Amino acid sequence: MAAPTLDILGIGNAIVDVLARADDGFLAAHGMTRGAMALIDAGQAEAIYAAMGPGIESSGGSAGNTCAVAAALGARVGFLGKVADDQLGGVFAHDIAAAGVAFPTARLAGGAPTARCLILVSPDGQRTMNTFLGACVTFGEADVDADMVASAAVTYLEGYLFDPPAAQAAFYRAAALAHAAGRKVALSLSDAFCVGRHRAAFRAFVAEQTDILFANESEILSLYETDSFADAMAAARRDVSIAALTRSGAGSVIVAGEQTLEVAAVPATVTDTTGAGDAYAAGFLAALTRGLPLAECGRWGAVAAAEVIGHFGARPQADLKALVGAA
Amino acid sequence: MAAPTLDILGIGNAIVDVLARADDGFLAAHGMTRGAMALIDAGQAEAIYAAMGPGIESSGGSAGNTCAVAAALGARVGFLGKVADDQLGGVFAHDIAAAGVAFPTARLAGGAPTARCLILVSPDGQRTMNTFLGACVTFGEADVDADMVASAAVTYLEGYLFDPPAAQAAFYRAAALAHAAGRKVALSLSDAFCVGRHRAAFRAFVAEQTDILFANESEILSLYETDSFADAMAAARRDVSIAALTRSGAGSVIVAGEQTLEVAAVPATVTDTTGAGDAYAAGFLAALTRGLPLAECGRWGAVAAAEVIGHFGARPQADLKALVGAA
Repeated sequence: MAAPTLDILGIGNAIVDVLARADDGFLAAHGMTRGAMALIDAGQAEAIYAAMGPGIESSGGSAGNTCAVAAALGARVGFLGKVADDQLGGVFAHDIAAAGVAFPTARLAGGAPTARCLILVSPDGQRTMNTFLGACVTFGEADVDADMVASAAVTYLEGYLFDPPAAQAAFYRAAALAHAAGRKVALSLSDAFCVGRHRAAFRAFVAEQTDILFANESEILSLYETDSFADAMAAARRDVSIAALTRSGAGSVIVAGEQTLEVAAVPATVTDTTGAGDAYAAGFLAALTRGLPLAECGRWGAVAAAEVIGHFGARPQADLKALVGAA
Repeated sequence: MAAPTLDILGIGNAIVDVLARADDGFLAAHGMTRGAMALIDAGQAEAIYAAMGPGIESSGGSAGNTCAVAAALGARVGFLGKVADDQLGGVFAHDIAAAGVAFPTARLAGGAPTARCLILVSPDGQRTMNTFLGACVTFGEADVDADMVASAAVTYLEGYLFDPPAAQAAFYRAAALAHAAGRKVALSLSDAFCVGRHRAAFRAFVAEQTDILFANESEILSLYETDSFADAMAAARRDVSIAALTRSGAGSVIVAGEQTLEVAAVPATVTDTTGAGDAYAAGFLAALTRGLPLAECGRWGAVAAAEVIGHFGARPQADLKALVGAA
């Protein structure tokens, strides 16, 4: 087995975020579930955009964010995801390449536009997301670059990829290729409602294909249909080699075989929680693929998450290497 | 003369900003003049974008920023400027409308794309701008809505409009319409290099058409080709009814007939100076059109500028009415 030439290959929905402040009255008036991600169609996207306040655009996408943060931490990173050949596709492609991430996926021409996520940020920093998948729905098996998967120590998949229909096949193909090459597969559960929409598929993929699992409390409880965090931890311990379970301000718990590690959150002024989980996974995997112990993986995750929630947008703005002490 | 139904009508280049952090080495390597605005063509825009770091997109344009800030302060505001019928044009149009600004200008179809400004933000917060004017170069006399000009207490023109060739005629038409309706014309000098490119035209427009002049120190010195601020102040006092001259952290000086008022800057943590002058003009005009005394106009300008330099991007993020005490 050749040494990996990439530390992390992310596969996910390639999305540009549009972030605007909104109060909870706005969420209620538009029937949005605070803190969740809802899928919307083109017409809904137009209606919500027309109603929301002035925005800031920033590249996003869960796995895309993770890739950008991991690259900022010094990891060798690639990303696969589908944008259209339009201005927002150009923005996404620029930003991820400028972050140091290899991004070879062909752009979609003449079809749906680049995906966007309309994100309402509440006064307390909570984010509520409305995603128009656009070009992402065409991401499929053919877009999985076999050589890149085989060359990456970890192939990282976002749970949101269970939503676009063609992506599940891509997902399984990537996992098969990774394992055939002796590599690891990591999965983020992404969103409790997304888990609810595809629970059986998630359960099977976690048990059969996943080595490293990322989830927050509501997601892991949804996955295992329990209200006991201890029970969910036990189930994750059986299913995967490493589970990193985040609990917002209460830090994270890492479960790996017989080990259980509690990692403190890093104090932060919360401006916008968009991308907190993505950044945690990035810090964790950047440290893991560098060969650092699990406690250090959790600390890197916590540091990266604290940076990202301190400002608008999910991509890092500060010198993350310096923040984790790896400069 | 009917009472105005708008307080401020801004006319300017309709631009989407792309902001990224960069060190001074990057500016030097690309031959950029720190703190200035340079005009670039489509090829240069592509090359600079490819070289710069991950970005944040935010609606911009000098007069557009002023309009958005003034509306946030409660003024009744309209804006005229040209975007294309593309995704970035949609972003600009959304953001200015969502800020509460009337924006009736027809979009350009089938021509140049929406203008963008590639902004490099230095570690000390200074911004260096590279503007690809795109669709803005087609803004002309026909885009000046005569009824809107006549209905606005102040028509506000950005000096950057001296760059696109067709805009100067639009500029003069707007001033003539405003004065014919008994309204005021305000001008921002925008940039010392822009003043240098069009000094004779600026001098004539200031002396003959301008009632209210905004400039920072380097711009007013460039306009009057002097290195004496006192001489520049004296010249501005002769040319216009009110001149508001900003001096960054040293505050501003307001010159009006025999009056000279010094206004302190509002302390701020500088993240990104993009839009500081635009926000000052907005605060000043929002207070002026509300009938407040000149000292209060200067204070509103200082408060608005302090808010905008505290974060990435030129559009306000905090509750400006509360900050000036007008909530």
